[in-house]
Amino acid sequence: MHSFSFPGYLFGQNRAKMTVNLNCIADICLIPIGTATPSVSDYVVEIQKVIQHSGLKYKMHSAGTAIEGPWDDVMALIGQMHERVHEMGIFRVQSDIRVGTRTDKVQSAQDKIDIVEVKLKR
Amino acid sequence: MHSFSFPGYLFGQNRAKMTVNLNCIADICLIPIGTATPSVSDYVVEIQKVIQHSGLKYKMHSAGTAIEGPWDDVMALIGQMHERVHEMGIFRVQSDIRVGTRTDKVQSAQDKIDIVEVKLKR
Amino acid sequence: MHSFSFPGYLFGQNRAKMTVNLNCIADICLIPIGTATPSVSDYVVEIQKVIQHSGLKYKMHSAGTAIEGPWDDVMALIGQMHERVHEMGIFRVQSDIRVGTRTDKVQSAQDKIDIVEVKLKR
Amino acid sequence: MHSFSFPGYLFGQNRAKMTVNLNCIADICLIPIGTATPSVSDYVVEIQKVIQHSGLKYKMHSAGTAIEGPWDDVMALIGQMHERVHEMGIFRVQSDIRVGTRTDKVQSAQDKIDIVEVKLKR
Repeated sequence: MHSFSFPGYLFGQNRAKMTVNLNCIADICLIPIGTATPSVSDYVVEIQKVIQHSGLKYKMHSAGTAIEGPWDDVMALIGQMHERVHEMGIFRVQSDIRVGTRTDKVQSAQDKIDIVEVKLKR
Repeated sequence: MHSFSFPGYLFGQNRAKMTVNLNCIADICLIPIGTATPSVSDYVVEIQKVIQHSGLKYKMHSAGTAIEGPWDDVMALIGQMHERVHEMGIFRVQSDIRVGTRTDKVQSAQDKIDIVEVKLKR
Repeated sequence: MHSFSFPGYLFGQNRAKMTVNLNCIADICLIPIGTATPSVSDYVVEIQKVIQHSGLKYKMHSAGTAIEGPWDDVMALIGQMHERVHEMGIFRVQSDIRVGTRTDKVQSAQDKIDIVEVKLKR
Repeated sequence: MHSFSFPGYLFGQNRAKMTVNLNCIADICLIPIGTATPSVSDYVVEIQKVIQHSGLKYKMHSAGTAIEGPWDDVMALIGQMHERVHEMGIFRVQSDIRVGTRTDKVQSAQDKIDIVEVKLKR
């Protein structure tokens, strides 16, 4: 551990705000806990509006929503989604996030699908 | 624990084969570990073939593939996907699975999207 | 796709039961949806009993439980956990599963922790 | 959507920095893609150092590490873990994050385990 040269910073109240200099694709599945019924679509609708409002590129599918953009923006947006669901009266929110970063090339969520579909058709 | 009346069975070598009587929708993201390059599309292509071959209903998106069917079939299929990637020379495979079951109604993966999109347009 | 020699089988009602010949370590986080309150510990307690009853090796942590064993057994057990929560009156259950298989060596969940801790102390 | 009163902000270059006013418990499993071997423990060791350095409360288990703290700090830390692995020469990093927030009470990761263990012993 002694030779670890990670640039120093302080988290918490006195820290300078951290910035992560990476783009990411995050796939987020949010679950409100303690809802009156098994149906959660009203909450999904509201968080879709939060996502739309962000201006970030996104695509909903049956098990979540893929969102693309700078790390800090995407993670702040997911936090906003939690805040929105809490505002709707839900005391507990759980999300599952699959997030990827790569530094060798720029690849969009759609690019990932396209390359597989092209190779499947060969 | 004393009052727990879970029906008895034995896992492992001497067990009778377990059957789970639930349908599920599983969203699976598989990652081969120890690949020569950051690109994993050749593996994704092969597992898409395994899925197609199963006859189960599925839909690929940018962060995984949703598969619908009986619990046992879907989970065996995901195991087959692991086996296929191991056959391709990969020693380690990691998957992330989001899986849902419900007993109040029959709902397909597409139904989940449709209800949100209808409500968003109101 | 024509050259794909995946061994043929049929899923669904007429299939012969599939068997996956892999051991796995699965880390499972189960969420009951539509509970009366934000607290879900009563459900976690019940599924811990289901896991204990299975005879499989497991370890609970704050965000789930790691379970080790043959793929088919582990996945059947997770299905049983869903069934148990449905029996408790919950109509919808969602799980997040991180599952790994490897063919180069036998490694337990505890081994994975040990190797990191040993290297951290160097 | 017209009646949606979400407080306005702009993501991206011209935005004021977003702040999420929630504490969270995040359980993170990071996978480096394109490593020379199936063993990833050297990377896990390095990201454990990044976590230790942050000053945030954390606990490693066999399938990830639970981290507690303010949303923005925890998410920035996870981004730093990605950056660290990229610095080590890995072009692609994928993480699975289970993250929970609650507004009804303060509950640590250890509290979640304790309540289940107490109830199991009854």
